[in-house]
Amino acid sequence: MPKIVDHDIRKQQIAKATWRVIFKMGMEGATVRNIAKEANLSLGAVRHYFPTQDELLIYAMELVKEKAQNRIKMIVTQDFSPKEKVMKILQELIPTNEDTLAEMDVWLAFTIYFKQKKELYTPQHDDIYFVIQNLLDYLQQFGLLKSTIDKEIETEKLYAIIDGLALHALLDSKRVNKPLILAVITNYVDSICKDNEKDDSN
Amino acid sequence: MPKIVDHDIRKQQIAKATWRVIFKMGMEGATVRNIAKEANLSLGAVRHYFPTQDELLIYAMELVKEKAQNRIKMIVTQDFSPKEKVMKILQELIPTNEDTLAEMDVWLAFTIYFKQKKELYTPQHDDIYFVIQNLLDYLQQFGLLKSTIDKEIETEKLYAIIDGLALHALLDSKRVNKPLILAVITNYVDSICKDNEKDDSN
Repeated sequence: MPKIVDHDIRKQQIAKATWRVIFKMGMEGATVRNIAKEANLSLGAVRHYFPTQDELLIYAMELVKEKAQNRIKMIVTQDFSPKEKVMKILQELIPTNEDTLAEMDVWLAFTIYFKQKKELYTPQHDDIYFVIQNLLDYLQQFGLLKSTIDKEIETEKLYAIIDGLALHALLDSKRVNKPLILAVITNYVDSICKDNEKDDSN
Repeated sequence: MPKIVDHDIRKQQIAKATWRVIFKMGMEGATVRNIAKEANLSLGAVRHYFPTQDELLIYAMELVKEKAQNRIKMIVTQDFSPKEKVMKILQELIPTNEDTLAEMDVWLAFTIYFKQKKELYTPQHDDIYFVIQNLLDYLQQFGLLKSTIDKEIETEKLYAIIDGLALHALLDSKRVNKPLILAVITNYVDSICKDNEKDDSN
């Protein structure tokens, strides 16, 4: 079915051109005209794949989400101890290199844009709340979580830490760099987990 | 000097119209033309006070900052115990009503906009990092902070919690409401402070 493959590749090519345009010019610059130019396609070609600007923007945002999800899936299948796995997934949620910083930039621009368009907006669009919830459940299943923990409050707290760090990394990637992010996450995870020995015995 | 007062009042009137335009239409709608219309002024009148769009936007953003700073100053002068004071200031940094949610919306739109305009951008534009740093110093001066605390890491962590909660309140104010915000902040402050009795003895 080469036709379908071509179709998807072309859509992804347009989505990636969209990211580059938003990264360079902000959401103000994300017109179908600018995106077509960046993708080296005619206006008509872009409109063939995405009849409206919002369809294009939603597809491009979904693709950012998919990329992040794929990186998490990669970690899940690897051979780490439960606590290591949680640490690695949490780090993956915060941008630390050019690619992921650009993704975060685009993700935030999309979020603000769609918040304005109330009919297209869903607050839980990024699923990170549920990722965090699962990570705490996972630590608990392995008996690593302190028994005194209030899981609902810790979910909100960790979710805030992750998105707060991600925002700060985006706004000031020099200060909020990889070592600092690792230090904050390690400090937090240690604070909700039982003593280290329990995990090291794995 | 009634002339100067008039001048400031008129500038604030234009800045507030700018907030309303951004809140309703996003940064895309923040043209001098739309702002003049919202402020019931002529294009020429707005240009008289703000020769360029960026001068107007910077002034409007500074005014958002000033409003938040004034709210904090109000708390500082009131008669609370040190820990209560810290708790109240932290809560003040997170939007929970229509006014402060609108301010946060506008603040984030400004931040993203100015990040794009690299020549006008300073990462530490919101000063919240320094507010947090001062609050931890303040707790320490009163002997309330646990001695095992790494202050640099806790500053980053609390800064992330505050901005993360602020972002989540903006995106989903139903879930991230006043009681939830208070619960997360209380839980965090308790985790870095010595036992409650020490503070209650004040």
